[in-house]
Amino acid sequence: MDGQGMNSTVAVPRGLAGVVVTETELGDVRGREGFYHYRQYSAVDLATQRTFEDVWHLMFRGTLPGPAERAAFAAELAPLRRLPAEVRDALPALARATALSGPLAGLRTALSLLGASAGFRPVYDLAPGRRAADALAACAAVPTLLTALYRLGQGLAPVEPREDLPYAANYLYMLTGEEPDPVRARAVERYLISTVDHGFNASTFTARVIASTGADVAACLTGAVGALSGPLHGGAPSRALDTLDAIGTADRIGPWIRERVAAGERIMGFGHPVYRTEDPRSRMLREIAVQLGGPLVDFAVQVEAQVEAILAELKPGRELHTNVEFYAGVVMELCGLPREMFTPTFCVARVVGWSANILEQAADSKIIRPAARYTGPTPPQPVPPVA
Amino acid sequence: MDGQGMNSTVAVPRGLAGVVVTETELGDVRGREGFYHYRQYSAVDLATQRTFEDVWHLMFRGTLPGPAERAAFAAELAPLRRLPAEVRDALPALARATALSGPLAGLRTALSLLGASAGFRPVYDLAPGRRAADALAACAAVPTLLTALYRLGQGLAPVEPREDLPYAANYLYMLTGEEPDPVRARAVERYLISTVDHGFNASTFTARVIASTGADVAACLTGAVGALSGPLHGGAPSRALDTLDAIGTADRIGPWIRERVAAGERIMGFGHPVYRTEDPRSRMLREIAVQLGGPLVDFAVQVEAQVEAILAELKPGRELHTNVEFYAGVVMELCGLPREMFTPTFCVARVVGWSANILEQAADSKIIRPAARYTGPTPPQPVPPVA
Repeated sequence: MDGQGMNSTVAVPRGLAGVVVTETELGDVRGREGFYHYRQYSAVDLATQRTFEDVWHLMFRGTLPGPAERAAFAAELAPLRRLPAEVRDALPALARATALSGPLAGLRTALSLLGASAGFRPVYDLAPGRRAADALAACAAVPTLLTALYRLGQGLAPVEPREDLPYAANYLYMLTGEEPDPVRARAVERYLISTVDHGFNASTFTARVIASTGADVAACLTGAVGALSGPLHGGAPSRALDTLDAIGTADRIGPWIRERVAAGERIMGFGHPVYRTEDPRSRMLREIAVQLGGPLVDFAVQVEAQVEAILAELKPGRELHTNVEFYAGVVMELCGLPREMFTPTFCVARVVGWSANILEQAADSKIIRPAARYTGPTPPQPVPPVA
Repeated sequence: MDGQGMNSTVAVPRGLAGVVVTETELGDVRGREGFYHYRQYSAVDLATQRTFEDVWHLMFRGTLPGPAERAAFAAELAPLRRLPAEVRDALPALARATALSGPLAGLRTALSLLGASAGFRPVYDLAPGRRAADALAACAAVPTLLTALYRLGQGLAPVEPREDLPYAANYLYMLTGEEPDPVRARAVERYLISTVDHGFNASTFTARVIASTGADVAACLTGAVGALSGPLHGGAPSRALDTLDAIGTADRIGPWIRERVAAGERIMGFGHPVYRTEDPRSRMLREIAVQLGGPLVDFAVQVEAQVEAILAELKPGRELHTNVEFYAGVVMELCGLPREMFTPTFCVARVVGWSANILEQAADSKIIRPAARYTGPTPPQPVPPVA
């Protein structure tokens, strides 16, 4: 039903900043401590010690799996990687129509289509168990959708998913058609695990607002991808890499940064609205990058050190560290991901976090529907006759 | 960027009920008075005295048009009814893939696709004027998308839009392939005008949350259609008509209603969370229905009178009147719209309201991002070794 529920109103900070809209058992971010967690576990610990599928199980089912649960979960997921025939058949037309708008708009459309296909239930009277099954199927299909759209855009045939590879390795396999080097597959897997969830950001909130109406999983995910595409929400790991390219060589680091700061420009890859100390994702991704090694990593480490020193000198008292974009971009570049797939790769992980939030929200029967204050001229004024 | 902006939190009513998230000049609902308005004009007065295009102009540009503006606006809109070739070419595959999920999922997907096509700008650095142009194009294309998907689903060829017909008449024309009777076209137009906007409902809020990230118009509209599809949000005018069918004959009205009330069931088409008096849309739609006339209208008027009398007797003190669904269903049935197109027809109007809200929100640079309270076990707990 339409309309706001009451005429009495509650004043809150702009943009609902700090306004608690829901309770969650899925995780949180502690910006001052440089710490974030999925359920009761440090996200970075999970990324270091567990597989993507283990963390997916944790988010969806509440616990890290034991051996039997792990095998059962993998068996459940594997066939869901394959797209329904009517969706696969529609992808070439989708890839053509979204060729100019980038892979996020393609993913948004493809997820909407997938969720409308047979196998996903229509929204009315959607049972809770059915919604969980739809969420599992949607997440499992995201790498297949993204890589198929990417390859079609490149004039290549999509690569069918493999059931025997882990989630991250299968994603890289479908992108390139070649089985990935295990070190790189694990590096990408750790990045993906660290990206599953991160507090109550705008796309997660969007997914929950839509879920609160009782809408189906695809409706919620489609909205979340849309919110992520907004420049005020999304980071763009490729931008940080563009910064490294723009600097070019080690001797230009100092002058380049000083010029940007003097011009009042933001340095892409540095600073975060929440973390007041080092971003824990950044620390982990730097370690991964250093393990992978090579000239790009050496240069990135040099840039980081010099930027932090210069920013500390020019903006004393402000904590400005690399954010997750900086080394995420470096790691993805080293693992052979094309830059236009950096933000889509974020979705390959985050879709699991969105879905866990959708399932949690759907268990609550209360619609999220705030109010607006009308500030225009007082109605009713007579409608002027047609001139 | 991810994460919540602060750790201090503000407690508010569940579902953000009554929490003012934004100011708006677009309109409001006064539930106690049975009154709602678009800008400074009564929505019902507008639906009685103006065309859909006039009200669209009011919502988008702030004023009712004079003769020159009206002509210019019509000339601007007419070519936008035609779909880009790459979208038109993709619709048969879309119709096949969404055949089982209903027209809202089809519209969600088609709008996402349209917004990703050439002619719509990618999201980054989207200029305000460009966003308004995209909103105009998206709204103008909704009737074309919906009728094409419907006809493809019926095994019929889509009907190309006509530039010479008004918005509502062209919608009916594309649905049936025949120029509609002017009385019926005007009845549908009045329904559409009355449906353009209605306070700060969940789909409008969804559109504004996505817009607050800076996302493009298609991302916002896609999310709004998704939210509308949720059973806690959307009315379904066809359900009220199903009630009339289920009752069947005048002599069964009393027993049927008493059985339902005794079983604690809701009577579809009656009651609204906001209006504590007659829904002003319902009153207007009843007038339109009575003007159209016929046995269905006579029966609906009888049902309304008896249901209100019985509810007043069984639930004294509660104001339960017909809601907008009841006579909206009757009017659409009389105008030859198939029942599965009732809710999509709602979108034909509401897309203008959503878009006006998107444009208003996009002018504000503050992201809408509330907080959640973590209530799970205290982190960090050590990650158990892989078993």
